[in-house]
Amino acid sequence: MSLSAVYKKIDEQSDQTVKNLQRLCRQPSVSAQGIGLRECADLVKSMLEESGFNVEIVPLKDGPSVVYGELKSKVSKKTLLFYNHYDVQPPEPLELWQSDPWAAEIRDGKVFARGAADNKGNIASRLAAIRAFLAVNKDVPCNIKFVIEGEEETGSPHFGQFIHEHKKRLSGDGAIWEFGGLDYADVPAVTLGLKGMLYVEYHTKTLRADSHSARAAIVQNPAWRLVQALSTIRDDSGRIMIDGWYDDVREFTPAEIKALDKAPFDEEQLKRDMGVKGFLNGMKGLEVKKALAGYPTANIAGFYSGYIGEGHKTVLPSFASAKMDFRLVPDQEPEKLAKLLRKHLTDKGFGDIEMKIQSENPAARTSLDAEIAKISCDMAKEIFGVEPIVHVGSPGSGPMHLFTSVLKLPTVAIGCNHPFTNTHAPNENQRIDALIICTKWMAAVMNKFGEGRP
Amino acid sequence: MSLSAVYKKIDEQSDQTVKNLQRLCRQPSVSAQGIGLRECADLVKSMLEESGFNVEIVPLKDGPSVVYGELKSKVSKKTLLFYNHYDVQPPEPLELWQSDPWAAEIRDGKVFARGAADNKGNIASRLAAIRAFLAVNKDVPCNIKFVIEGEEETGSPHFGQFIHEHKKRLSGDGAIWEFGGLDYADVPAVTLGLKGMLYVEYHTKTLRADSHSARAAIVQNPAWRLVQALSTIRDDSGRIMIDGWYDDVREFTPAEIKALDKAPFDEEQLKRDMGVKGFLNGMKGLEVKKALAGYPTANIAGFYSGYIGEGHKTVLPSFASAKMDFRLVPDQEPEKLAKLLRKHLTDKGFGDIEMKIQSENPAARTSLDAEIAKISCDMAKEIFGVEPIVHVGSPGSGPMHLFTSVLKLPTVAIGCNHPFTNTHAPNENQRIDALIICTKWMAAVMNKFGEGRP
Repeated sequence: MSLSAVYKKIDEQSDQTVKNLQRLCRQPSVSAQGIGLRECADLVKSMLEESGFNVEIVPLKDGPSVVYGELKSKVSKKTLLFYNHYDVQPPEPLELWQSDPWAAEIRDGKVFARGAADNKGNIASRLAAIRAFLAVNKDVPCNIKFVIEGEEETGSPHFGQFIHEHKKRLSGDGAIWEFGGLDYADVPAVTLGLKGMLYVEYHTKTLRADSHSARAAIVQNPAWRLVQALSTIRDDSGRIMIDGWYDDVREFTPAEIKALDKAPFDEEQLKRDMGVKGFLNGMKGLEVKKALAGYPTANIAGFYSGYIGEGHKTVLPSFASAKMDFRLVPDQEPEKLAKLLRKHLTDKGFGDIEMKIQSENPAARTSLDAEIAKISCDMAKEIFGVEPIVHVGSPGSGPMHLFTSVLKLPTVAIGCNHPFTNTHAPNENQRIDALIICTKWMAAVMNKFGEGRP
Repeated sequence: MSLSAVYKKIDEQSDQTVKNLQRLCRQPSVSAQGIGLRECADLVKSMLEESGFNVEIVPLKDGPSVVYGELKSKVSKKTLLFYNHYDVQPPEPLELWQSDPWAAEIRDGKVFARGAADNKGNIASRLAAIRAFLAVNKDVPCNIKFVIEGEEETGSPHFGQFIHEHKKRLSGDGAIWEFGGLDYADVPAVTLGLKGMLYVEYHTKTLRADSHSARAAIVQNPAWRLVQALSTIRDDSGRIMIDGWYDDVREFTPAEIKALDKAPFDEEQLKRDMGVKGFLNGMKGLEVKKALAGYPTANIAGFYSGYIGEGHKTVLPSFASAKMDFRLVPDQEPEKLAKLLRKHLTDKGFGDIEMKIQSENPAARTSLDAEIAKISCDMAKEIFGVEPIVHVGSPGSGPMHLFTSVLKLPTVAIGCNHPFTNTHAPNENQRIDALIICTKWMAAVMNKFGEGRP
């Protein structure tokens, strides 16, 4: 297809694209607070239909519906899936916003709204690319399947159910994840994976009610039990001391290490941001990047027991609890690790400590050699004139494994985001220039991907 | 002096004694909330003066005043000191009281009020014994010094200052502590000591603000630091693993072990109350009593870090904090132990963890052979017709060491309290029959003590 005409059309339609983004942003859709989800699903359905999609709203048991759309190409048998989400983070604290988080006000070339960047900007951008193709060619360069869920911001608890139940209709040749875009200095970035997660909560209770701490002489203190138990899980260097924890860890390939090494990373800036003098174990340079992208972690996210107010209280607490998130890497399996963790605690004499799994997600990592990865990089070079940054893995987590492992789709994260979008924070925004240029990048990727027909 | 006439007078004046207790109780005096302390000190001063005492209100720097009274005996050169406190615990939760905590309502032969038992009942009882002596003999059987502070319920933070500054005028031959009285089945009990206390707070901060837990791969988590540090302090059996911690521990004498062995103790009841199947390390019988009376403890009273609400949050906490109370026994010195603890943490690689001492009190234990101890036991037998229970040490703590170590006064805890007084709880009460009979016991002790003149 003639891309220059498509790029021109994207520019011509840019006002419409911004209006579409504002339309999406003006519909609140906060999954954590159960606000506006059905209305937003209906709006997304309408917008997909306006771009020629066959759309179905698929209800989920106990969760908000998934909006699913299909659009067939006349020229290509290749199918590209887009994963997005229509839900957003809560807008609070409201007093820190310079304009109403649902007003989608435009200032300084940016649309300010909760969800403008995460993730409505990417929905608007992908639809804009499709609209330009349809305007120029009355066709799209490959088959498109849109999967847009409504619970990403609360950990996608019911999304696995959707993927497993609709595995067949979700077949395809590659997928593009919800986020991505420009890195610092507006260099395009391609992210190839996410860490997985095993989130557990521990609880231990040794007596009926809080008691006078004089009785510490004769009764076990649950906080001590939990401290002793946790102290066996991870050493001070960050190494997880559970037998077999590292058995299935997939090492980086030489090509991945090369990509990590090449990716820009401002260590000093990160240290300043976090207020730290150095990183764990004095790690530097490539080691820091490898850790962020591919080291399993064991993090205490919360610990509570007894009296935590001002001053002193001599109390023997009746219970103690802790929350831990373990970040996983390919090819660690959360179910297997949960069993290893349980066994470890029992073997160490802490079988009485209750352990509840709150969530589990395997990691995902798409090969640098996958077609969608290569095309994403090549087209970035074409549009931006620079070598893109390749992030072998993002240090964050998400249900990408449902695409890579369950649907077996090579998946990359590219989009129209940029640094300073204030994602999850007040004054979230989407730069309009980034929205438009990245829409061209997306059009180029779709076009190239479809050319391998089949 | 003729004791039978004094006992008769105590009975005759019992209405007045109850009225005096009500008068004291109707004056709120909550040290934790700074309510009514000056008014209560004035009231106590008046009541001492009405019983012939020379009274001084001694202001303390930064704390409520101490009421100090002296009353000379014409017949004896022996001096007995009484330690009491006029402050009380906060009355909350108010909705659980059956009558106003400041109304001092009489029901079922009990005075219900905040402070009725702790510690205004004992002030009223001691003054009642003195009043009876004065009515019968126009004299008291020994010199009396009353030291009544106003901050016991908040840990007596300024009381040491008073004792050190007034050491000379506080000379004497023995002392009676604030609490004590009847045990279960109304058997009188004599308590000879208290544990000491070293209360510390730890704080560790590894980054400026809470961060995304993806960064756990590269930055130290303060909760891990604190868990690892604490895990080196005490093993799972309760043993404190700090070098030198047990060096100064005074062992029980054979006589003390005999007393411990004889003291009644309903293990099964305590287990039921606490909802535990067994005690630490499976200890039983004498071992449990020895632990409560004389084993050092290390108790985690509180631990906080990160996210402790419902559900899961993937946060890398910026700080962690914990509170610990170490119960001490004779002859452990808190300053020395604080240094050992600090050194231990540094030696184990946790020198970066801040440690703040919130309070420190040595333990106190008066010998079974001390005159005041023997007299208390002998007179209990005389008044109640049964062998008293001797508690070699109370598992609780308090500033008794200021009397035993600084003033060098053998000190026992006897008084008019009884089980089920609901001390520190709603519906605190003082049984009137216990108030009166224990006043006779106190009169007998004063009389016998004075007879060794000088």
